[in-house]
Amino acid sequence: MVDAWTLMILKEIFLGNTRFDGLLAQTGMAPRSLTLRLSALGKEGVLKRVVYQESPVRYEYLLTAKGIELWPVVVMLKEWGDKWMGPWEDSMPPLQLEHKGRGHRMELNVICNVCGEPVNANKAIPLMAPAMKDERDALAVAHGKTVRASRANSIRKFEPISKE
Amino acid sequence: MVDAWTLMILKEIFLGNTRFDGLLAQTGMAPRSLTLRLSALGKEGVLKRVVYQESPVRYEYLLTAKGIELWPVVVMLKEWGDKWMGPWEDSMPPLQLEHKGRGHRMELNVICNVCGEPVNANKAIPLMAPAMKDERDALAVAHGKTVRASRANSIRKFEPISKE
Repeated sequence: MVDAWTLMILKEIFLGNTRFDGLLAQTGMAPRSLTLRLSALGKEGVLKRVVYQESPVRYEYLLTAKGIELWPVVVMLKEWGDKWMGPWEDSMPPLQLEHKGRGHRMELNVICNVCGEPVNANKAIPLMAPAMKDERDALAVAHGKTVRASRANSIRKFEPISKE
Repeated sequence: MVDAWTLMILKEIFLGNTRFDGLLAQTGMAPRSLTLRLSALGKEGVLKRVVYQESPVRYEYLLTAKGIELWPVVVMLKEWGDKWMGPWEDSMPPLQLEHKGRGHRMELNVICNVCGEPVNANKAIPLMAPAMKDERDALAVAHGKTVRASRANSIRKFEPISKE
């Protein structure tokens, strides 16, 4: 269940706001709505529930390894929002990131690891796995289109490459 | 309106599947549901509707500059899914990206542009704009917590820095 609420919860937890009442306070969600999404994120293995107080038992919600690796998604959405969702008070987006141990503000960029160059939408040509290509062709035909008429199916298949 | 459907639509449009019937075929959405989301994405300035056929009039949905810059979000979600949502047939995730003009498969990484180092959740310390900090403190208090008891509010404010 990916929706705006789920993204807001993840953002809060990345900020260290890991407890139910703190999440309620900062998101403004209804308790039932928050419970549902925390439960879904738990089932998907993104969050784990950890006891922080024994009596009465109270839980906090921490990111699993799978959850922590959503950081690039959350942070790229923040970058996008910073640019497009303003204007911001004093021209400052609400959150900045400090690069730990470096003493400077983090400025994020996406690069291709193979050559080290910055990349964007215009640098990427999608290639499809044969099984996905076949599935998409079948969907187009089932929808009454010839495969040729379906522009999304002009995408090339990729050649399987062995991982050295 | 960010939800799983919206992300699926954006993915399709990044793949070049820009027409209503192609989007219906590949997403499996109900027409009304697709219409609603295309309309919302149009209002938010993420998509623009462009005539590709005059009679009868037919539209395709293209990304605006604001929309194209969602690529890092979409592609980081793909990377995450490739890693965590498998297993994939023949161990190949359904989509790969070729680095245009480079002849290699794109491997994505997030770096800090200031120092060039790869970054992740553990390298980022969030700093809050004073206005946001005040707002969060007020939300915590309104929720019956002291500011001190609200762990999310241990985040430091950032010092306004001038952009040189």
